[in-house]
Amino acid sequence: MYYNSEDIENLDKAFRANLINCLSGFKPAHLIGTADKLGHTNLAIFTNIVHIGANPSLIGFVQRPVSNDSHTYKNIKATGIFTINHVHKSFVENAHYTSARFAKGISEFSHCKLTEEFIGDFKAPFVLESKIKFGLQFVQEVPIKINNSILVIGQIEHITVDDKALLPDGIIDLSVVKDICTSGLTNYYTATKLSQYPHAKSDKLPDFKIEK
Amino acid sequence: MYYNSEDIENLDKAFRANLINCLSGFKPAHLIGTADKLGHTNLAIFTNIVHIGANPSLIGFVQRPVSNDSHTYKNIKATGIFTINHVHKSFVENAHYTSARFAKGISEFSHCKLTEEFIGDFKAPFVLESKIKFGLQFVQEVPIKINNSILVIGQIEHITVDDKALLPDGIIDLSVVKDICTSGLTNYYTATKLSQYPHAKSDKLPDFKIEK
Repeated sequence: MYYNSEDIENLDKAFRANLINCLSGFKPAHLIGTADKLGHTNLAIFTNIVHIGANPSLIGFVQRPVSNDSHTYKNIKATGIFTINHVHKSFVENAHYTSARFAKGISEFSHCKLTEEFIGDFKAPFVLESKIKFGLQFVQEVPIKINNSILVIGQIEHITVDDKALLPDGIIDLSVVKDICTSGLTNYYTATKLSQYPHAKSDKLPDFKIEK
Repeated sequence: MYYNSEDIENLDKAFRANLINCLSGFKPAHLIGTADKLGHTNLAIFTNIVHIGANPSLIGFVQRPVSNDSHTYKNIKATGIFTINHVHKSFVENAHYTSARFAKGISEFSHCKLTEEFIGDFKAPFVLESKIKFGLQFVQEVPIKINNSILVIGQIEHITVDDKALLPDGIIDLSVVKDICTSGLTNYYTATKLSQYPHAKSDKLPDFKIEK
């Protein structure tokens, strides 16, 4: 199927939302944990999380235009900290339902049967069930003026990684802990390791074999 | 394993690069196709691509600090257009090796045995072997001052999607075309569909079952 600019503009709104969301390919799906100044916790699934750099260690996410329901963003701005927790096959359904609009007062942890965990004196909640998780200090927000969204960037401060998934060179084998990935708004996938290649050098190219 | 801020700072540089890269979870891995003003083509794998919004249809990628080798970025700024091409299992090795540093003059398409395709009068090259691909008009670059990188944003203008992968509601089943995803710098994964959930509503929560 081929669509040009005009076709895209004229697409049914729901169809376009699905199509454009899927075009960006497989995405991570992580739970962001926050608390407000009084310690009320919040948990929400985010799929537009992006690696910004390893030194300093920075990860960002795209915050859609801020509304009354943007509890994650408001808590981050109020407290300066948040957690990112990987989602595994065992609780992907719980994670998905954190995206529902809950009345204020009871945390998504309770609604979606996930367990709050506090590590050291870090005031944002981690997800106990998650085997790869990290705490971040908010460092910068970058306005994306074209659609009124915001790139929110945090610096990684506390990392917990399952020993079985962490390889000697620092690589994490995400398949060991059954990490899931997502596509679009409602579909989740499991992943299986396919291949690992060395750092690519132009004088050491392999014999490429494309299966048609 | 647990690391605090000080541990992270003191990690071996290569170990930290692997660890931090893997922490962001599964990522897309797509080929960005560009041409300079004379029509010399360039192709490079990018894994920090992020969905920005569906209306207007925007996708961005994080450009690391610009250097002499940043041909993709320079071509986008010179011509205003680029393509994003999904990578399938059949040519993941070819795609990986586009990250090598090639001497100027011969395109990665030739070096890595992939085929240029031009659609209509769009001057940026697509990858013929790719079954999901789209052309973008550059619309905005957002400086990320904290580490001197740039969020480069394009608006989607030409979409080609394999008919077998496109479902009636606009969702693309990426597993049908054997799309790959990646983690860290050198590892590639295939993905299998696990589950699809409805749009989450707080008054219709399922009975959650967590397998411990």
